[in-house]
Amino acid sequence: MKQPVYLNYAATSNQKFDTTIDELCAYLKENNSTNTNRSINTLGDLGSLFDARQVLADFFHAPDPAHVIFTSNATMALNMVLHGLLKPGDHVLTTMVEHNAVTRPLQLLETERNVVVTHLVCAKDGSLDPEQIETAIRGETKVLVMTHASNVLGTILPVKECFEKAKKHGIITILDSAQTAGILPINMEELSIDILTFTGHKSLMGLSGIGGFVLGKNIEKKIDPWLTGGTGSASHLLTQPDFLPDKFEPGTLNMLGIISLKSAVTEIQRLGLEQILMHERMLTKRFLDGVKGMPIEILGCQDAERSVPVVSLVSPKIDSGELAQRLADAFQIITRSGLHCAPLAHETAGTIKTGAVRFSFGWQTTTAEIDYALSALESVLSQ
Amino acid sequence: MKQPVYLNYAATSNQKFDTTIDELCAYLKENNSTNTNRSINTLGDLGSLFDARQVLADFFHAPDPAHVIFTSNATMALNMVLHGLLKPGDHVLTTMVEHNAVTRPLQLLETERNVVVTHLVCAKDGSLDPEQIETAIRGETKVLVMTHASNVLGTILPVKECFEKAKKHGIITILDSAQTAGILPINMEELSIDILTFTGHKSLMGLSGIGGFVLGKNIEKKIDPWLTGGTGSASHLLTQPDFLPDKFEPGTLNMLGIISLKSAVTEIQRLGLEQILMHERMLTKRFLDGVKGMPIEILGCQDAERSVPVVSLVSPKIDSGELAQRLADAFQIITRSGLHCAPLAHETAGTIKTGAVRFSFGWQTTTAEIDYALSALESVLSQ
Repeated sequence: MKQPVYLNYAATSNQKFDTTIDELCAYLKENNSTNTNRSINTLGDLGSLFDARQVLADFFHAPDPAHVIFTSNATMALNMVLHGLLKPGDHVLTTMVEHNAVTRPLQLLETERNVVVTHLVCAKDGSLDPEQIETAIRGETKVLVMTHASNVLGTILPVKECFEKAKKHGIITILDSAQTAGILPINMEELSIDILTFTGHKSLMGLSGIGGFVLGKNIEKKIDPWLTGGTGSASHLLTQPDFLPDKFEPGTLNMLGIISLKSAVTEIQRLGLEQILMHERMLTKRFLDGVKGMPIEILGCQDAERSVPVVSLVSPKIDSGELAQRLADAFQIITRSGLHCAPLAHETAGTIKTGAVRFSFGWQTTTAEIDYALSALESVLSQ
Repeated sequence: MKQPVYLNYAATSNQKFDTTIDELCAYLKENNSTNTNRSINTLGDLGSLFDARQVLADFFHAPDPAHVIFTSNATMALNMVLHGLLKPGDHVLTTMVEHNAVTRPLQLLETERNVVVTHLVCAKDGSLDPEQIETAIRGETKVLVMTHASNVLGTILPVKECFEKAKKHGIITILDSAQTAGILPINMEELSIDILTFTGHKSLMGLSGIGGFVLGKNIEKKIDPWLTGGTGSASHLLTQPDFLPDKFEPGTLNMLGIISLKSAVTEIQRLGLEQILMHERMLTKRFLDGVKGMPIEILGCQDAERSVPVVSLVSPKIDSGELAQRLADAFQIITRSGLHCAPLAHETAGTIKTGAVRFSFGWQTTTAEIDYALSALESVLSQ
């Protein structure tokens, strides 16, 4: 078995597709980088950029390729849309299992702009009752922002039900797909998503440093520019251009990241999401079956069918950081311990003081690696 | 001669160093990407990240490697520091030759926060008289932000003189080094720079999608977080951590971009900035000598010793966009026409209505390419 055994796919996918690596190396060796919109383009980048927008628009069922906005990561995308949408006095709904990429910008908006935030309560396993939405909505509720699945508990949230309720009240819906894009099918129209934020380096299998957001219909005019600068377009204006994608894409883009996404999502489409999901659920189920009976507490719903491939656990005897470190030192197994940038999810699970050790699986994870991790865990716990 | 002939280095360096390309391809093929701070790190990324900070800290004479903050580009860096520093009622000094990466965020701050902006006047050739600073300063002047050299006119600004005057009044100094880092030596202490913003993909010879800022001494506490999110540290906090670099680095970084910068800046150090500058000045002088006598107006100071390797020109007979297009179509020469994301610089030069065609040179530019461009230009102008 290849060592180290990488079981931290919820943080980032490790091994990218061979096709992607080949494409990126060819691009680097051809040295044909130009700066889109900032050159006479007889060279190839403008084509790659357009292709990438098209591939992602198809993948997420976006209304138009120009509605695909590239940013450096999901954090940047969430900051741009939250700061661009929320004004003083606005009310925003979110959940108790969000990543700090959502909670920290909202906390800043509370302090700086007097935005009011309501965190919808989740059960200890991370599940969310959509019925709460109706009672939480106020006259000034403008936005519902939520993750598609908890990065700690693995539990998938009822996005469609929540967003349909929100849309009935004219509330803008934002889905953070960091943990699900590339695993679960996401159809913006079917799920009533106004704004979809994504990161490239997790299950979309691209490089780190690329992410973005996709705009549904009739939403872009409601988002004010927050990040501004040169776009290589409408250069006479001291204000940001108001057309897409330039309105939200100031500064030079990460072309290699964009090419990696185009290449990787094309490969995902070829493999089929269904096949990827089936494989990762099989692994998750195998791991869940294996840890049952061990002297640990397993977080989340413990049902692979209702989860992304993430299993977090706590030992009553061994500190989480220590447990992860022993797995790394003695068995070369890479996990992630701590609070996983999601303190409210740990509050929900009752693990804010202990943290947890998170195992997460990806397309390249093998059943042999799952079995190896189970026996390593058993060994560490029995010491 | 390799075609196309790329003369748009002020937008981006095209061909990266062979050493950089080899290092990036090796990294991609090893597939060892992890997510720094978000994993048990037995793997290599944490080391690369630290090395990159160290290389850049040495290069710019920064007080500490942790003062090197990575962002997606210079635009992002400028937005972060300007929005983080400027409060309602603050006064900011800048110049008439700034890029839209400075002017557009300042324009937004004028509208949203009632920040007051004064643009220091430049002569038609882009040169700036530092004496203006004294009379422009007010009680509420907080920041002086300026470019090191105009991206249109090429003219280098008297940064040291301006910043010394500003520092006497306790004003925070920000240098936009997008056009000079990797060409001119930049010593933060000698030039009295509080905050240095940089981009990786121009003369620093890295990939696109990486940039950042470097903090001098005693400045970080004055900059409030503007972009917030997960840092893989202090995860229990709903606010941004207050230590460097995490305070300003939420979200997953562009590791490949960071590795490219580390590699390329190491190579620049090996070559020596002096050798690079001498080569690029020789090319600029050769081009300037060659265009003299042609039926065109040359912008800027027309002195290679006082410029970065940028020469913009206007034909009284042929539209700038048309001229650039003919050079591309008939001679495969890549330039950039238009307003170059710097409308105030074109206002200064008297070319806001016509735009200009910009030729810009880099380390890989050869004298043969300069001569080819000159004869192509002569041919197009004589048609």
